[in-house]
Amino acid sequence: MQHRVMGYDRATTMFSPDGRILQVEYAEKTIRLGSASIGLVCSDGIVIVADKRISDPLVLPKASIKIWEIDDHIIATAAGVLSDARVLLEHSQVVAQQHRVTYDQPIDTESVIKDVANIQQSATQYAGTRPFGIAVMMAGINRDKVKKLYVSDVTGNYLGYKASVIGENDEIIKGLLQKGYKESLNIEQGIKLAINIFKKVLGRSFDIERFEVAFIRIEEKKAKRIHGAALSKYIK
Amino acid sequence: MQHRVMGYDRATTMFSPDGRILQVEYAEKTIRLGSASIGLVCSDGIVIVADKRISDPLVLPKASIKIWEIDDHIIATAAGVLSDARVLLEHSQVVAQQHRVTYDQPIDTESVIKDVANIQQSATQYAGTRPFGIAVMMAGINRDKVKKLYVSDVTGNYLGYKASVIGENDEIIKGLLQKGYKESLNIEQGIKLAINIFKKVLGRSFDIERFEVAFIRIEEKKAKRIHGAALSKYIK
Amino acid sequence: MQHRVMGYDRATTMFSPDGRILQVEYAEKTIRLGSASIGLVCSDGIVIVADKRISDPLVLPKASIKIWEIDDHIIATAAGVLSDARVLLEHSQVVAQQHRVTYDQPIDTESVIKDVANIQQSATQYAGTRPFGIAVMMAGINRDKVKKLYVSDVTGNYLGYKASVIGENDEIIKGLLQKGYKESLNIEQGIKLAINIFKKVLGRSFDIERFEVAFIRIEEKKAKRIHGAALSKYIK
Amino acid sequence: MQHRVMGYDRATTMFSPDGRILQVEYAEKTIRLGSASIGLVCSDGIVIVADKRISDPLVLPKASIKIWEIDDHIIATAAGVLSDARVLLEHSQVVAQQHRVTYDQPIDTESVIKDVANIQQSATQYAGTRPFGIAVMMAGINRDKVKKLYVSDVTGNYLGYKASVIGENDEIIKGLLQKGYKESLNIEQGIKLAINIFKKVLGRSFDIERFEVAFIRIEEKKAKRIHGAALSKYIK
Amino acid sequence: MQHRVMGYDRATTMFSPDGRILQVEYAEKTIRLGSASIGLVCSDGIVIVADKRISDPLVLPKASIKIWEIDDHIIATAAGVLSDARVLLEHSQVVAQQHRVTYDQPIDTESVIKDVANIQQSATQYAGTRPFGIAVMMAGINRDKVKKLYVSDVTGNYLGYKASVIGENDEIIKGLLQKGYKESLNIEQGIKLAINIFKKVLGRSFDIERFEVAFIRIEEKKAKRIHGAALSKYIK
Amino acid sequence: MQHRVMGYDRATTMFSPDGRILQVEYAEKTIRLGSASIGLVCSDGIVIVADKRISDPLVLPKASIKIWEIDDHIIATAAGVLSDARVLLEHSQVVAQQHRVTYDQPIDTESVIKDVANIQQSATQYAGTRPFGIAVMMAGINRDKVKKLYVSDVTGNYLGYKASVIGENDEIIKGLLQKGYKESLNIEQGIKLAINIFKKVLGRSFDIERFEVAFIRIEEKKAKRIHGAALSKYIK
Amino acid sequence: MQHRVMGYDRATTMFSPDGRILQVEYAEKTIRLGSASIGLVCSDGIVIVADKRISDPLVLPKASIKIWEIDDHIIATAAGVLSDARVLLEHSQVVAQQHRVTYDQPIDTESVIKDVANIQQSATQYAGTRPFGIAVMMAGINRDKVKKLYVSDVTGNYLGYKASVIGENDEIIKGLLQKGYKESLNIEQGIKLAINIFKKVLGRSFDIERFEVAFIRIEEKKAKRIHGAALSKYIK
Repeated sequence: MQHRVMGYDRATTMFSPDGRILQVEYAEKTIRLGSASIGLVCSDGIVIVADKRISDPLVLPKASIKIWEIDDHIIATAAGVLSDARVLLEHSQVVAQQHRVTYDQPIDTESVIKDVANIQQSATQYAGTRPFGIAVMMAGINRDKVKKLYVSDVTGNYLGYKASVIGENDEIIKGLLQKGYKESLNIEQGIKLAINIFKKVLGRSFDIERFEVAFIRIEEKKAKRIHGAALSKYIK
Repeated sequence: MQHRVMGYDRATTMFSPDGRILQVEYAEKTIRLGSASIGLVCSDGIVIVADKRISDPLVLPKASIKIWEIDDHIIATAAGVLSDARVLLEHSQVVAQQHRVTYDQPIDTESVIKDVANIQQSATQYAGTRPFGIAVMMAGINRDKVKKLYVSDVTGNYLGYKASVIGENDEIIKGLLQKGYKESLNIEQGIKLAINIFKKVLGRSFDIERFEVAFIRIEEKKAKRIHGAALSKYIK
Repeated sequence: MQHRVMGYDRATTMFSPDGRILQVEYAEKTIRLGSASIGLVCSDGIVIVADKRISDPLVLPKASIKIWEIDDHIIATAAGVLSDARVLLEHSQVVAQQHRVTYDQPIDTESVIKDVANIQQSATQYAGTRPFGIAVMMAGINRDKVKKLYVSDVTGNYLGYKASVIGENDEIIKGLLQKGYKESLNIEQGIKLAINIFKKVLGRSFDIERFEVAFIRIEEKKAKRIHGAALSKYIK
Repeated sequence: MQHRVMGYDRATTMFSPDGRILQVEYAEKTIRLGSASIGLVCSDGIVIVADKRISDPLVLPKASIKIWEIDDHIIATAAGVLSDARVLLEHSQVVAQQHRVTYDQPIDTESVIKDVANIQQSATQYAGTRPFGIAVMMAGINRDKVKKLYVSDVTGNYLGYKASVIGENDEIIKGLLQKGYKESLNIEQGIKLAINIFKKVLGRSFDIERFEVAFIRIEEKKAKRIHGAALSKYIK
Repeated sequence: MQHRVMGYDRATTMFSPDGRILQVEYAEKTIRLGSASIGLVCSDGIVIVADKRISDPLVLPKASIKIWEIDDHIIATAAGVLSDARVLLEHSQVVAQQHRVTYDQPIDTESVIKDVANIQQSATQYAGTRPFGIAVMMAGINRDKVKKLYVSDVTGNYLGYKASVIGENDEIIKGLLQKGYKESLNIEQGIKLAINIFKKVLGRSFDIERFEVAFIRIEEKKAKRIHGAALSKYIK
Repeated sequence: MQHRVMGYDRATTMFSPDGRILQVEYAEKTIRLGSASIGLVCSDGIVIVADKRISDPLVLPKASIKIWEIDDHIIATAAGVLSDARVLLEHSQVVAQQHRVTYDQPIDTESVIKDVANIQQSATQYAGTRPFGIAVMMAGINRDKVKKLYVSDVTGNYLGYKASVIGENDEIIKGLLQKGYKESLNIEQGIKLAINIFKKVLGRSFDIERFEVAFIRIEEKKAKRIHGAALSKYIK
Repeated sequence: MQHRVMGYDRATTMFSPDGRILQVEYAEKTIRLGSASIGLVCSDGIVIVADKRISDPLVLPKASIKIWEIDDHIIATAAGVLSDARVLLEHSQVVAQQHRVTYDQPIDTESVIKDVANIQQSATQYAGTRPFGIAVMMAGINRDKVKKLYVSDVTGNYLGYKASVIGENDEIIKGLLQKGYKESLNIEQGIKLAINIFKKVLGRSFDIERFEVAFIRIEEKKAKRIHGAALSKYIK
């Protein structure tokens, strides 16, 4: 509380006396307020299962996407301020497209998440902006058929994962993933694992209509999507 | 109140300790203070019914429009600070015109709302401006004759809808829409539904002179308008 | 008062917690402190009757104009900070001139008021400036001989009118206009109506020397002016 | 006082709750602290009589001018912060010179005062500067031999006068001018009127050494100056 | 505490009354909160042993690197805000690459650390940014086969070392290094020394899985890495 | 004091409620804290006598100059923040040099002081800088052999003098100058007058070693200097 | 203290009511916290003796320099924030190099210190930066074999000296220098004088390992250095 009274938490251009950047910590809270997404590296590809938390029957199901296709071989989602995510990931779509046009081959997944993370870092150090209030999850199949799953945080740090989660209840879900995840899971099994983790964690507010799944098979290199009710078969 | 005393609500470049962007929340209040508009995807086209809340007999009826024609095939309205809306939607008119000149074909409705939403997002993250105090509703008939209805909020998020509402009493109207709306409604029926929802919600302050309707039929791809008294026939 | 102590009213880049832009509301007070002008669309043209509120005998009557000629076919006035008005309307003169030079025909009245309103809107959203402390009234005869009368407010909103008023006592004058105005009035009758409304409203401080009238007849498309004493004949 | 505590008077980019721009009002106080100047339109030309308020015998009389020659046919003076005046009026000298070079004829007096007033207005609306702390008085003989006298204030408003005053005691002097001024006065008589008004108003602190006079005769179109003691003959 | 109340610690553009730059001191605390790295100049090359402090089994070991290869002959690590480090050291990679392309030979290690330190200094003097919250350690083999180890601090100062440490417990580790380090140690012995210093200092939280080693042999001029379990053999 | 509490004295972009620019007044205090200089227009040239207030025997006498040669025919000194003076007067040296190169003749003394004063004025009106904490004294022999002595103050005002003083005790010295100065004094006599005024005013702290004299004879148009002890002969 | 509460000491763009620039005074404290350096003009060249205050045995002695070679004929050191010094003096190296390339001869020592001092002055007047927290000492042999020693302070003032000191205990050391320095000392004797002054002043914390000496002989025009233990022979 002392730091708040003193104003150390008003700008990203300031360290608090104990060496923290409080605006960044606040932005991290926003992320934990956002609905969660689970990403998995599976034996036959990569998959993201996202909770959209929207259940207005007048919303067009396909018009409210929470998983972006960055390019044919890369999908991404985010937790936190979704308009921040949209702007940043649409920028990534352009970056991927420019790479394809310039080099005549698909961009590496890490190049895209690194570019996203650099923009995130910049917004935590320079004046005139607030941090992006998002964690970004990005999964792709690289040219050498290697599967990749990355998560970047508010600070602009990113790590590679076998399986991970962003958004609300991330600590609980991480625990369940560590128990349930095996590298041998295929995409079908991965979706099932993720959906049932959500069912367990969300409890009574779990509603399969709120979910969106996207995956890319190694051989296809083309994102496929499953929305709402079509996901019912994965519920245990 | 604590957050106000501490000043977390003075700029969009700041997160509050609980991860909120308060300036954005305040701008959302402005929108709810604005008069409402209802948009509907109908079987034969799209329609917007807007409450202008103006009843000065010395105002020229046709000079006070609240529904903008972005292009022949797209109409839009807004709730909140109407001058913000005018500036932003006149920008959209230019964007649509440039697209037509460059590609020799009409712009996609989503491209226009996305551009609007990007500008809205930007005003919630960077210093030197306040958020646009508006929610934008945009409806159009795309080249493939697909009907589209989008709503963007202050943060720069947008979603596709079958039917939606922006402005005062939005929660009540949304409930009435969910009950009354069917995809099989034609434009005539849609106008009737919207006008009578307004009549119910506004009660004694309902005045058909305050309303403006614009719609585009799939086959015509040209906005038509009905003002004030001419709308009387739709009142039940 | 609470909002003042908290500082929500110090900049146009801020919404108050109840969604208002207080700097804009303060600027509106300036306008109501300014002397009033009445504009009328008449059967044979348009007319503006302006109270200059200056009665220094050493001031050259013709040197203190409050009604600007934007172009041969458009006149304008303003209420509030007159130096703000002068700068903005001299800008409009240039805009009109450039249009004439570029397209070899007179500019549309609405194009000019829209340009003025856009500049006004911009000053209510971006940092580094205060809002223009003026309401602008603009009247013109378009190429198709259609008569137009527009009023823009501080926020950058504008509406078309048959008759309107800006400045002090605007609500009272508006009431009198609604009673006295008919579309069949000619310019002579319009001036008479406006002068006598001023006489009634200003009471003992009414002084015909303070007034300035400008009008454009449809057929002439050239502003004419009547100053001070020459207006005496219109007093009932 | 309330407004001061609340800080509404700290910048020109802010309106006070009652619609005033307090920084501009403060700047107006500076002007009233400055020594006064009287300007007169006479039958045979125009004249400015300025109180320099300097009586240091080591100052070179001709080196401390308070009346600037903008061009052969225009003279100007100011009240308030004299360095602000010098910078602005030297800018006017350049403007006049550029006009002469470009169009091969002398600039209109009103064009110069309008340019000055525009710069003054700008400094009352945009951040990063304070208002110019000056009122400017400008007198000239235009190409058509018409005599002009203008005064611009802090806000960037200007008016044409037959006779006027800027600086300390302006209200009292204005009263005396209204009594003593006639359009039939020639320059000699005008100087006499002004000097004796100063004598009356300044009382014991009146000192003819402090005064500077400049005038332009219609036929000569060339400013002439009278300094200090040479003015004694005009004292009644 | 006095300085905090007075606000001397809010920006790098301010000295405190006792001549300190407090924001820089706070940033130094961040560094001491970061996990430590030890760098050693050995008889046959240079080596960096870094504690990554990550033990999530779902993180890909090779995807979370804490030691960057600036070029074939230079490696670097950092303590503190790792996203700051990543951005700065990826910039160094570009600098090194440009040098190679321009001069057709590898860049000098000191040129790279000097460039890093210059950017760090700049962020402690100019407004609009916070200091980089990192200490950087850089080790390289120059063209003349000379081994170099540099450490730069928050202020942008850098020094050359035989052996050094950055991050948590730096004072204790520095003491152990002074006792254990000899210039005759080869890389194998150096890794052993560093690992066992970490084991001693971290105590029960020591976990070999958290460590990453990179080294460059004089003759090879190519960085090699050892991750996690493969490091077990070095534990005494 | 009231104004200080209210903060009217924190920036040059603000007028106080009584129309003063307090930052400028504070800068004027700096000047009165600076050691004084006396300038004189003599029958055979111009002279400046400056108190350097330095008496460190390890300082090279000729290396600590307080009188700058702007060009062969112009010398200048300043009171207040000497580094501000150095930067501004070295700028004047460049201006004089450019004039000589462009027009092939020496620059007018007033052109130089006007340029200096313009820069000083600018620093009292625009944000992002403080006023220059100096008064500048400039003396020169123009092409027509006319002798000139100017003094500019913090606000950017300048006046021409026969004799003047800047710096500490300026009021007292001005009184002594008015008594002792005659236009018929030659340079030798002028130096004597100035030195003995300093002796009288400084009393026990008078030390001839602290003084520096520079003068230009009309016929020579080349500054000559006398330092410290060589000035003893002028003491009465 | 009053000034601190009022905030006059927060920026270099502000004068305090008594005409001081407090940020500059605070920066001067930083300099006095820095370890000292002594510079001497000797009969056969110039010499700088610097206390590095570093005694970490793991630091490479030659890698921690405190005396920079600006060019073959100029050396420099600084007291205060050493990273500020490094950045500024590396800039000087470039300036000297550019001069050599452009004019094919070595740069004058005063040109370099003047450039340094100009940058220092600028940082005390304009917003967006803090003052450089350093005093700079620069010694060189000019083309005409003249020996020069300059010291610039925080404000951007510089003076020429026969002998001087910057950093902690500067007043005491200055006294000892005035007693011990003679122009006839040669470099060997000068080093001896400086080292023994340090021994006296530092007392028990004196450690010859902390010292670094650089000198340039008139005939050689090439800086030579002596580090640590090699300096023992100069201790009395």
